[in-house]
Amino acid sequence: MAHKVSPLAPASFPDLPAIGGVRFATVAAGVRYAGRTDVMLVDLAPGTVVAGTFTRSATRSAAVLDCQDKICGTGTGGAAILVNSGNSNAFTGRAGRESVAAITGAVAQEMGIDPARVFTSSTGVIGEPMPHERITARIGDLKAGLDPEGIGAAARAIMTTDTFPKGATRSVTVGGRTVRIAGIAKGSGMIAPDMATMLVYIFTDARIGRADLQALVSAATARTFNCITVDSDTSTSDTLLVAATGVSGVDVAGDAGFAGALEAVMLDLALQVVRDGEGAGKLIEVQVEGAADDADAFRVAMAIANSPLVKTAVAGEDANWGRVVMAVGKSGARADRDLLSIRFGDLWLARDGARAPDYSEDEASTYMKRQELVIGVDLGLGRGRARVWTCDLTHGYIDINADYRS
Amino acid sequence: MAHKVSPLAPASFPDLPAIGGVRFATVAAGVRYAGRTDVMLVDLAPGTVVAGTFTRSATRSAAVLDCQDKICGTGTGGAAILVNSGNSNAFTGRAGRESVAAITGAVAQEMGIDPARVFTSSTGVIGEPMPHERITARIGDLKAGLDPEGIGAAARAIMTTDTFPKGATRSVTVGGRTVRIAGIAKGSGMIAPDMATMLVYIFTDARIGRADLQALVSAATARTFNCITVDSDTSTSDTLLVAATGVSGVDVAGDAGFAGALEAVMLDLALQVVRDGEGAGKLIEVQVEGAADDADAFRVAMAIANSPLVKTAVAGEDANWGRVVMAVGKSGARADRDLLSIRFGDLWLARDGARAPDYSEDEASTYMKRQELVIGVDLGLGRGRARVWTCDLTHGYIDINADYRS
Repeated sequence: MAHKVSPLAPASFPDLPAIGGVRFATVAAGVRYAGRTDVMLVDLAPGTVVAGTFTRSATRSAAVLDCQDKICGTGTGGAAILVNSGNSNAFTGRAGRESVAAITGAVAQEMGIDPARVFTSSTGVIGEPMPHERITARIGDLKAGLDPEGIGAAARAIMTTDTFPKGATRSVTVGGRTVRIAGIAKGSGMIAPDMATMLVYIFTDARIGRADLQALVSAATARTFNCITVDSDTSTSDTLLVAATGVSGVDVAGDAGFAGALEAVMLDLALQVVRDGEGAGKLIEVQVEGAADDADAFRVAMAIANSPLVKTAVAGEDANWGRVVMAVGKSGARADRDLLSIRFGDLWLARDGARAPDYSEDEASTYMKRQELVIGVDLGLGRGRARVWTCDLTHGYIDINADYRS
Repeated sequence: MAHKVSPLAPASFPDLPAIGGVRFATVAAGVRYAGRTDVMLVDLAPGTVVAGTFTRSATRSAAVLDCQDKICGTGTGGAAILVNSGNSNAFTGRAGRESVAAITGAVAQEMGIDPARVFTSSTGVIGEPMPHERITARIGDLKAGLDPEGIGAAARAIMTTDTFPKGATRSVTVGGRTVRIAGIAKGSGMIAPDMATMLVYIFTDARIGRADLQALVSAATARTFNCITVDSDTSTSDTLLVAATGVSGVDVAGDAGFAGALEAVMLDLALQVVRDGEGAGKLIEVQVEGAADDADAFRVAMAIANSPLVKTAVAGEDANWGRVVMAVGKSGARADRDLLSIRFGDLWLARDGARAPDYSEDEASTYMKRQELVIGVDLGLGRGRARVWTCDLTHGYIDINADYRS
């Protein structure tokens, strides 16, 4: 499990501000891992509004189903989020539901809040019985350790195959007063979000209604977490929760600055997930334009980003743009071969259905040596656009996934 | 390019019979490779009927487009098939179309047949200009070398990343007389056929009308080549041609024995393509039953067969059935988590939405050491069934594809 830190990792974990109304605690409960923290608890002040998006997998986990039941609740008391790593509590049937009930019940009792305001996530191996008693036994310890400055430790407690903890922050001034946003995420493999992605928790002291917050979160998810893929495999546990405590007293409903800052935090975290893609050596941004519509552009972008042949070519620093042609062709999107143009960065390799007249293999090869690349496609048909991010496919991915459980 | 032979390869190339009315020739034309044959020519007797299926890629090659234009033709003179490896003539624009015209014209002239009866395929790098003059210069040599026994050499001439040549044969008795079928194929990566697959050429001395032959071929394609996947990437060049010379004088229209034998040859060749999947160490058969309908069963089977996480787990001999749960969940097919059961071979790992009560990690681990495995899924919903084949995802795949062009 001890894989070396991704070469695409940020230089250091960012300096995340405390968010009014939010406290964190972690423990090493031994759910599966030894010698590391594996449970985090977040305490949220009374009045906190929680919005979220979740995986659409047909085999989503018991914790996801429980969150979905609760996310539209109108309770106004205190709230909590508890997350464990090491066991996903997915495909665990009736016992899995009972584990969620046991954990949320224990948290509610210890914190003196409504169980309908306790959200949980579990990440790790699928299908193993969940030893929830190892978690419920430590709720008192967690409560005792709550700390407004504990977000960095929380980011570490939720890691599985992640090689670095992921955090992001923005602040924005609304009506002359400062609103802060800070978030953490985990995710490295089984990344092809279909609603939200992985586990992501974002906190803000802004004041905003639940419906307004959910609308912002859903719209930004479509442009951030739903635009990344590591391996085309969709997790059973994907969960994004955004909690607004209102402690700043600043009302942000309808404020474009706040919406932009929230989306920036989400994009920052989403790109950190790609940067920690299992075995990743290069970050790839796929830009598609000229599609018949945005849906077709997204289809083409994802076909490129999920193609094992494109991703291995990037790993090998091979400017094999023919594989981009292949991916466009298989995507199912409307395409006219004779209008298709392809570039790597600003280097046009193909124009209007054939190799570009000024194509230079040397220039293309030099470009491929970069750690961060852009693959651009112009379909030449219309105004549809999309932008997605992925990483290359390397020996590291095989190493990590051929022995994950053992 | 010199990769060691797949551990899943058959012990030897089969002994293929001569088919009345069919002759083969090969040359080393230096299209791209040095020191090996790279062009094959097949001469087909007057009256030969040709049926085929082709890739549905939007960026299909010039040769595929030309074949599709010709496949419904009603000509009755001699016919020919010319195939080169080393260059796919895909995404080569107007120049690509001119290359096809030059090759088919030269073959027609040399053989004294109608250009509308000359079918070509090209396989290799995408997007490179096609040096067709290297091929047209050798048509006379090819004609001079035509040999009824040349099918094995032809199978070798069309290889690219293949580690072994692929051939299959069946014979069937119809009305007391023998009909022979023999076929060859190439394919190893970029395998996720969407109509036919790769390059496949099958010959028979049966007598049958074009519409009847096409109906047999289309139906069998759906159960054979369209049920295999190596890497979810669909080629721009997939072509399957079946030529019936009628030289046996045996009419096979409506004969179930002939239809079965033809499908058996197609399945045999399809499985050889999977056995030569790039980097393959294990052959995986995915069996899905209990789906709401056959389309859903196929969707689930392909989601499992294309999942990098399932394929790396098999490579690592890890009985990680939780990843099968994940693949079912992301497939988009109707599924009820609490009715889902999963087996590896005859070992039931999960029953009705949770780990099987008699689950044995030891037994499952022992099973995973086999070279050929079955992953079975019962969705518990209806009568829909599907069966597909794939291989594991190993370091070999990365090795081969990170340096294919160099």
